[in-house]
Amino acid sequence: MGIRIVVDVMGADRPPAELVRGAQAAAKRLPLNLVFVGRQTEIHPHLDPELPVEVVHAPDVIGMDEPPLRAARRKDSSLVKGMRLLADGRAEAFLSPGNTGAVVATAIFTLGRLPGVSRPGLCAAIPTLPGRELYLIDAGATVDCKPYNLLQFAEMGEIYAREVLGEEAPRVGLLNVGEEEIKGDKLTREAHKLLQGRPNFAGNVEPHRLITVRPADVVVCSGFAGNLTIKALEGGAEVVWEALKRGIGNARGGKLAALLLRRELRALSQRLRYERYNGAPLLGVRGLVFVAHGRSSAAAMEAAVERAFWAARAGLLERLSAGLARAG
Amino acid sequence: MGIRIVVDVMGADRPPAELVRGAQAAAKRLPLNLVFVGRQTEIHPHLDPELPVEVVHAPDVIGMDEPPLRAARRKDSSLVKGMRLLADGRAEAFLSPGNTGAVVATAIFTLGRLPGVSRPGLCAAIPTLPGRELYLIDAGATVDCKPYNLLQFAEMGEIYAREVLGEEAPRVGLLNVGEEEIKGDKLTREAHKLLQGRPNFAGNVEPHRLITVRPADVVVCSGFAGNLTIKALEGGAEVVWEALKRGIGNARGGKLAALLLRRELRALSQRLRYERYNGAPLLGVRGLVFVAHGRSSAAAMEAAVERAFWAARAGLLERLSAGLARAG
Repeated sequence: MGIRIVVDVMGADRPPAELVRGAQAAAKRLPLNLVFVGRQTEIHPHLDPELPVEVVHAPDVIGMDEPPLRAARRKDSSLVKGMRLLADGRAEAFLSPGNTGAVVATAIFTLGRLPGVSRPGLCAAIPTLPGRELYLIDAGATVDCKPYNLLQFAEMGEIYAREVLGEEAPRVGLLNVGEEEIKGDKLTREAHKLLQGRPNFAGNVEPHRLITVRPADVVVCSGFAGNLTIKALEGGAEVVWEALKRGIGNARGGKLAALLLRRELRALSQRLRYERYNGAPLLGVRGLVFVAHGRSSAAAMEAAVERAFWAARAGLLERLSAGLARAG
Repeated sequence: MGIRIVVDVMGADRPPAELVRGAQAAAKRLPLNLVFVGRQTEIHPHLDPELPVEVVHAPDVIGMDEPPLRAARRKDSSLVKGMRLLADGRAEAFLSPGNTGAVVATAIFTLGRLPGVSRPGLCAAIPTLPGRELYLIDAGATVDCKPYNLLQFAEMGEIYAREVLGEEAPRVGLLNVGEEEIKGDKLTREAHKLLQGRPNFAGNVEPHRLITVRPADVVVCSGFAGNLTIKALEGGAEVVWEALKRGIGNARGGKLAALLLRRELRALSQRLRYERYNGAPLLGVRGLVFVAHGRSSAAAMEAAVERAFWAARAGLLERLSAGLARAG
């Protein structure tokens, strides 16, 4: 039996058909069984008859503006029904491209937290210029943090990088507006004091250096700062990319230039587009929950399902629980 | 008599020679008189004898890790001496590429705040894909904000955009992790309530949309969030740009492609590089203070001096005081 992954295909920016298509592309390549949760009529027409796919009907959809705590109580929603399947042990992982706040609240409510964890953190992968991914935690699960939340994100991020990804001695940095110890808002300055004692602390890391030099393996911050940073990194990249495409379109020899550079442009687009880095595990809850981009395309869903598959294969949840118990 | 601009050339990442060179390039084009403050011996050899330049010797340099309040008391530093010249009415504007926190503390200490202003905000210009600049306030002056600080940034940013830049009815947005009203950390959610009543409120603005669609003329946020966002936007752009250059360098027909696209690549680089957008006015203090990037190159200093010149010509300080008094 392959890994079972529950995919919530409602409440995202794109229609269910596109999300179903993306998830199925991953299932064609990997030994995994998909369980789609959502409105039957919007899912069935798009199913691939050759894949072992299950559909669980959920008539209710949670919108992007639904308050998290209210969303967690909507039992007929795809989000709550899907999370329930995970809680009942009927799947190894749950993935949703919907309202992040609602996913987090529902996960805490339905699954509970791992022992000792105060607040969960989304651990997002970010592409870097040197090549290797960097992990940012929290990417948006806990917008208002206390300093000890950041310390816990550091512990969980470190376990994830070492135990699941196999980084030998992962270095953990603190997202900040300057490299100097005195820089930052109150939260960040106090978190710095808590992190300073850790042997693998890489100090403060500025947002641009995250991706230009990759000065750490894991970087911690509040969910508010992390989400802003990721969206700004993507926006900066998107603008140059768009402006470049327009420039090539307008240039007299643009077609020839595009032809000459086709391999490099394709590689660049492949390497830096957010789709490849989609799907962030929510670390700290009792279950393997992944949050995908709200504007996930089919390709982005494919990448997110693939990431969830490998995390389940690598025993992320068991390793995190064991690691936290040891650190305890 | 031209506009007099005091330029602090110490305490930045690049050597004084480079900053002197950049400032002088602006002075060659515009009717302005420069007053350099810093170590004489590091400035004199680089002066252009044809320009009306003055040098005020300051033996002491404030580093990037100096605590702001301590910096503001170092009377022999280029920062405090330069700010003093502005306070004494011996110049129209002061520009520093040094430690932002130190510049802000020294400005408050030496010049005082405009009546009714609780905290000053740095108003940074940001390039956008549609073309026109967007103004982000606060870009890093007040890292820890209360909701009413953001309301005041909105008032000052609006006056700046309307009275100095001539935008007819500037729209003001709130930087946030989502467009929905319920999104954000506590500070942002409370600031949303304060801003909601204003007729020109453009709602929440996500970081990537700042520059891809430019949904507002002015966007407000805490200095911590604003500084992270600007640095991340720059980082995202830099990575694509760097990767593209490497790709062109590695491609078999890369040289020809670069030749075919040379005009477009140059235009793109010109339009999006941070150097062109350097120099942010510190709104809310009793004097025209500009903060430049700590890593300012000569070209970046030139742009910052030019921006300070035009702000002084447009009567930024008088218009801001008058506008605040009317809004009072």
